[in-house]
Amino acid sequence: MGLIDNINKLFDHRIRLGIMSILMVNDDVDFNRLKELLDVTDGNLASHTKTLENAEYIKVEKAFIGKKPNTKYFITPLGKQAFKKHIDALEDLIRNPK
Amino acid sequence: MGLIDNINKLFDHRIRLGIMSILMVNDDVDFNRLKELLDVTDGNLASHTKTLENAEYIKVEKAFIGKKPNTKYFITPLGKQAFKKHIDALEDLIRNPK
Repeated sequence: MGLIDNINKLFDHRIRLGIMSILMVNDDVDFNRLKELLDVTDGNLASHTKTLENAEYIKVEKAFIGKKPNTKYFITPLGKQAFKKHIDALEDLIRNPK
Repeated sequence: MGLIDNINKLFDHRIRLGIMSILMVNDDVDFNRLKELLDVTDGNLASHTKTLENAEYIKVEKAFIGKKPNTKYFITPLGKQAFKKHIDALEDLIRNPK
């Protein structure tokens, strides 16, 4: 059993880490707000939200506000659980690496 | 300025994060011990130590113990500084994402 076994590969990327951190403390966050908070491009954000959606760590909800399309993201119970485990593993690794 | 700007891309990968965490608290660690602690293959570990060496975050020292080659790694002052900054940014992101 290696020291990094509980570190989730899906959260290795800082953009995915950012998305998860934000969704942990907000009921939902829309695409533009995420983009702004993380300071990333549309394409970049879309690709990372897709990866997290495929893992069922986050869910997307598409709606219209007036005539404007609005895409909101929220974290799933599975995502919350996986992220907590990841953070615990990170803390363990950093505090007691050996 | 995005929330993840201070998260160092070089430490995104969990193997590199593992190497740095271990070298933060040990004066030096040899290749086989790192391999064992992280439970990774030779090739995988060698590629990630190389990336960290190229960034001058770690240094390598090759020697012989009797007739056996021994490769030791240690962290540089630059690496220590960069890793501390990364950990601070991680903590900030996780605790106060917005």
